[in-house]
Amino acid sequence: MDRDTPGPGGGPGRGGPGGGGRRGRGRRRGGRGLGVSVTAVGGTPEAEGAGRVTLTFAPSGRSVRVPPGVSVFDAASWNGIAVDSTCGGHGTCRKCRVRLTGPAPVTAHDERTFTAEELGSGWRLACLVRATEDVEVEVPPLVTRPKASTVGVGRQVILHPAVQKRYVELTEPSLADQRTDLARLRDAVDDLVLEPDLYALRRLPVVLRHSDFKVTAVVVDEALVDVEPGDTTGRRHAVAVDLGTTTVVATLLDLGTGTPVAVASMLNRQQPLGADVITRISATMLDRRALARLTELAQETLVALVEEVCAEGGVEPAEVYEVALAGNATMTALALGVDPEPLGVAPFVQASADWPVLRAADLGLALHPGARVVVLPALGAYVGGDIVAGMLASGMDRDSRVRLFVDVGTNCEIALSDGERIVTTAAPAGPAFEGGAIRCGMRAADGAVEVVRLDATGPDPATAVSLGVIGDVEPRGLCGSGLVDAVSELVRVGLLDASGRFVPDEVAASVAPALADRMARVGDGERVFVLHRPSADAPAAACVHLSQRDVRELQFAKAAISTGWSLLLEELGLVASQVQQVLLAGSFGSYLSPASAVRIGLVPALPVLRIVSAGNVAGEGAKMVLLSQRERTGARALLEEVTYVELSDRADFNDRFVDQLAFPP
Amino acid sequence: MDRDTPGPGGGPGRGGPGGGGRRGRGRRRGGRGLGVSVTAVGGTPEAEGAGRVTLTFAPSGRSVRVPPGVSVFDAASWNGIAVDSTCGGHGTCRKCRVRLTGPAPVTAHDERTFTAEELGSGWRLACLVRATEDVEVEVPPLVTRPKASTVGVGRQVILHPAVQKRYVELTEPSLADQRTDLARLRDAVDDLVLEPDLYALRRLPVVLRHSDFKVTAVVVDEALVDVEPGDTTGRRHAVAVDLGTTTVVATLLDLGTGTPVAVASMLNRQQPLGADVITRISATMLDRRALARLTELAQETLVALVEEVCAEGGVEPAEVYEVALAGNATMTALALGVDPEPLGVAPFVQASADWPVLRAADLGLALHPGARVVVLPALGAYVGGDIVAGMLASGMDRDSRVRLFVDVGTNCEIALSDGERIVTTAAPAGPAFEGGAIRCGMRAADGAVEVVRLDATGPDPATAVSLGVIGDVEPRGLCGSGLVDAVSELVRVGLLDASGRFVPDEVAASVAPALADRMARVGDGERVFVLHRPSADAPAAACVHLSQRDVRELQFAKAAISTGWSLLLEELGLVASQVQQVLLAGSFGSYLSPASAVRIGLVPALPVLRIVSAGNVAGEGAKMVLLSQRERTGARALLEEVTYVELSDRADFNDRFVDQLAFPP
Repeated sequence: MDRDTPGPGGGPGRGGPGGGGRRGRGRRRGGRGLGVSVTAVGGTPEAEGAGRVTLTFAPSGRSVRVPPGVSVFDAASWNGIAVDSTCGGHGTCRKCRVRLTGPAPVTAHDERTFTAEELGSGWRLACLVRATEDVEVEVPPLVTRPKASTVGVGRQVILHPAVQKRYVELTEPSLADQRTDLARLRDAVDDLVLEPDLYALRRLPVVLRHSDFKVTAVVVDEALVDVEPGDTTGRRHAVAVDLGTTTVVATLLDLGTGTPVAVASMLNRQQPLGADVITRISATMLDRRALARLTELAQETLVALVEEVCAEGGVEPAEVYEVALAGNATMTALALGVDPEPLGVAPFVQASADWPVLRAADLGLALHPGARVVVLPALGAYVGGDIVAGMLASGMDRDSRVRLFVDVGTNCEIALSDGERIVTTAAPAGPAFEGGAIRCGMRAADGAVEVVRLDATGPDPATAVSLGVIGDVEPRGLCGSGLVDAVSELVRVGLLDASGRFVPDEVAASVAPALADRMARVGDGERVFVLHRPSADAPAAACVHLSQRDVRELQFAKAAISTGWSLLLEELGLVASQVQQVLLAGSFGSYLSPASAVRIGLVPALPVLRIVSAGNVAGEGAKMVLLSQRERTGARALLEEVTYVELSDRADFNDRFVDQLAFPP
Repeated sequence: MDRDTPGPGGGPGRGGPGGGGRRGRGRRRGGRGLGVSVTAVGGTPEAEGAGRVTLTFAPSGRSVRVPPGVSVFDAASWNGIAVDSTCGGHGTCRKCRVRLTGPAPVTAHDERTFTAEELGSGWRLACLVRATEDVEVEVPPLVTRPKASTVGVGRQVILHPAVQKRYVELTEPSLADQRTDLARLRDAVDDLVLEPDLYALRRLPVVLRHSDFKVTAVVVDEALVDVEPGDTTGRRHAVAVDLGTTTVVATLLDLGTGTPVAVASMLNRQQPLGADVITRISATMLDRRALARLTELAQETLVALVEEVCAEGGVEPAEVYEVALAGNATMTALALGVDPEPLGVAPFVQASADWPVLRAADLGLALHPGARVVVLPALGAYVGGDIVAGMLASGMDRDSRVRLFVDVGTNCEIALSDGERIVTTAAPAGPAFEGGAIRCGMRAADGAVEVVRLDATGPDPATAVSLGVIGDVEPRGLCGSGLVDAVSELVRVGLLDASGRFVPDEVAASVAPALADRMARVGDGERVFVLHRPSADAPAAACVHLSQRDVRELQFAKAAISTGWSLLLEELGLVASQVQQVLLAGSFGSYLSPASAVRIGLVPALPVLRIVSAGNVAGEGAKMVLLSQRERTGARALLEEVTYVELSDRADFNDRFVDQLAFPP
């Protein structure tokens, strides 16, 4: 929510309605859904929407319930109902005209905008009138055609990018009108602030005089970055980057329509210097030159991806005016050339939570010379810009439900909202989910087992194990979701006990006769469960298997995570059963089976329909800040709204961790 | 004057007192003086200070008269009386404590700053209390030691540079205090805004941890440009540049003391592409590559000068954090790489009046990586940043006297203030003053005649002509001031009539017997006056002489100028005799003999004591914007306060021009 939005009495700037634009009118209870319902689903009386007012928009017929005092414009925007506006609801453009059925105060701006007759029949500026009681709102057809785009977890975002273009036909100067070129342009573009780049000032006199004073002003936020000959308003692009430790994904967006034009991904070229955040930080501590090298490699990755999406989308790089970068704190620091060492050692301190707007050239990107890079801010050394992007994309700050956000990975970021407050933490889950420290572990690539189903008592041992394998090829190993599935199934059928130990052979033969022959020992006698035999006579060690130590690794990982969310629940005075939605985020979380996650205790024991794969929310959040200045403000506001809870500081962490090692009964 | 300064009732933000800090108490009338008196000298009753109030400052005993309503802090600042302050009088630092003898309202800030007893005995914050009646003001000894520096035409400037340093000793982070490095620094530097450059963010974590968290924050305006290990507050420099068409002058300033450390000048390296503004603009119109070349040459000039002053002053370039650039509109455009063509052809339009703050690197300057360049804004295509700097340095906006500012040159800039309003214009004087189009003309270099005195009736023809020659060498030619002197003297002695024609030989013999033998003819019979014969038998053409056509050139030049100021006088409803001070500015104006300037009608016919050489006011103004943010705001405010009058637009210009060709009777 924007900071300048008047919030309801209780929590300033919080508790507003979420997305849910696709829902139609009325209330809706329960059910699995990515879209955010406009009224609360279950929960406390406040969350039920007590004290809210209902706005019904015509001609769409859509109804929304919002806290009293919210402006009609914001209520519409939050719900994906497009109201004309070029200033974004700041009371300056006077375009957001709506007609209300009920009485509403008349402001000075209204008086300047409407005739007395119009005022009498209920016309007001939507950004200045507050919803104080139930009312119907007539929204005229759009003139400036704001568009909405569905992004993230069912969020509808009204397009209002920082990148704006205005085509103007200027009067030519004369001795009677010696206004400077810039003043002339500013007078014509009266709804935007134009603070010129030197580059734009260099182009201005030349372009004006070579195109009969018919030009397009290109503005990024408040910077005039260029003046283009003729009308180029239809060409306006930006690139959203999800800067992952392993994989980097770039999406080229058409800012006029809000749609992706091209997507490309590649391995982060920093990989050779370390598979994860900690090894890369270590590299910089061991070798003075490593930071420069890592920065170079990050930038090479970005350059290659940006070239690829531009080529694929048929877009000139000079038509890309903005880049958004969402990465964890370490990836962000490395890409910007900032020493990450303080992130890697206690007390885990960032150089800065927020970053200045950079030039694309600072990152070596050959886009428009004035192109800017907006870097998603971070909440802590281990809750980075990727997570802020994820919170934005999943509407963590705009939903009145109790929601738990879990981005599963080597470092697991967790956020919990009770609809008023948001708390967040990071749990050191270790490499188990990415295949590290797991005997047959591998990344989620071709040949990785990602789904495991066991039939312990069926008649045919040959079909007692069903495996889902990426690429539908011969299984080669076990990726994170397969690991969780395998352990979860072994617990379910009774081959693993609640403490995580393989049961004795005689118990195995009794509880799971069809699977008993898969219990084996390898090497020093460690017990394993064979998932796949490449040939009938292959020894267990040559098979895809799960070992006792693998189970322990997973237990450590899931205990770290569940300790995290259980502490957050406590922080907000909640119990697990009150959680109304769990969002599993990130490249790993999105593939996880909700049932297995519940079974091993990775997430609270809830009906599986409440557990939702959120997808690549980091990338979606990066898109959102490009598509909407309002969302960008919202991302910054999260820095103030979210409380970071440091786990390593807690005396009771180890006790709790041990408590969480066992699997739920 | 700052825009945020509460002005007197009549002209907002105008009419405040000027400098004059060196004057001692009481009023002072008339007399030649560069310092600006605090009360009006002659003129209208308003200019006499009617309705003003007198503030007497203790312990200095200084009295100043200011318009009622001005804050005590501003009244002191304008008069060079240092009052403690770190916020510059904006009501935030609560350091500007003064004790007043009379009653004064108590603000909420006062209540938070002083005890009841202190309030009772008259203590108030100087920036919040307004002068409404005569009062005595006790100023405590300084704690933060603001210093004042005398700059420009007797202006006292309180040092408050945009470049600020703060030494801080930070507490080290812990798990209980995980503030980011930037937040930690911001919390410690609470009187400045710190918006970090990427460079500063890169340095921050490293420098903090390598210097025990004892660092100096380097701030330029609101940008955090660096964090330096230990206490470097004593090292703070900037370079002021007067970017002339002919000569470029750089002054290295110590911002801690306000004093110049080194000065260097050199010919503008653009010279080979054209001696003046118009030929350089033409060069860019004839050759597409010329603009890039001219920009390169301007930057080479700046680089060489900056290197020279740093070397001479023993200052590391990395200790220079800011550069101020004052040049005419064309020199500024060329240095910044902006096409100057629209400046050179009607309707004479600038790309922009004001320029964004640039990085020194944008101009190729290897100073501190975060060093900024502030470019003085321009009032019109022919009243550039050099003139804005000159107005600042001469206090045109802070003086209640009627003052005329004339920067004599190829393009002559003229400004007139009546104490309330300022009007300005540019007159195309042509190259006469720079030796161009004058038969024996030369630049003001060794061998140039700069002073001419004639004794028409003395006994000895050998001593009838006294010449002042630059470098005390054999005369080689005539520079601008020598030209004005020569013509003025020839008019005085009667060898030139009022229309500018040499008198017939018989008249010459009668009115100036000692000089008659110097009247000669050359080439096609043109009449000349011989100023210096290299040998007794040298023909007139081989002598340093002044020709009839030379006189005509000067007449054209001075007529353009006097048409300019006479139109400005008319614009403000004044007559010439009301002008209380004429400031002759620029490298030429400063050498001009006031008497000769009056005699030929270049300036109004006033007592010579009212005609003052102002020196290199462009360079002084550039220094002022480096030494004082208040003055920098004042420079920008001039864009709003000054009205530009376009001469080429006036139907009556030619008539008036012809009227002005003759010399005054």
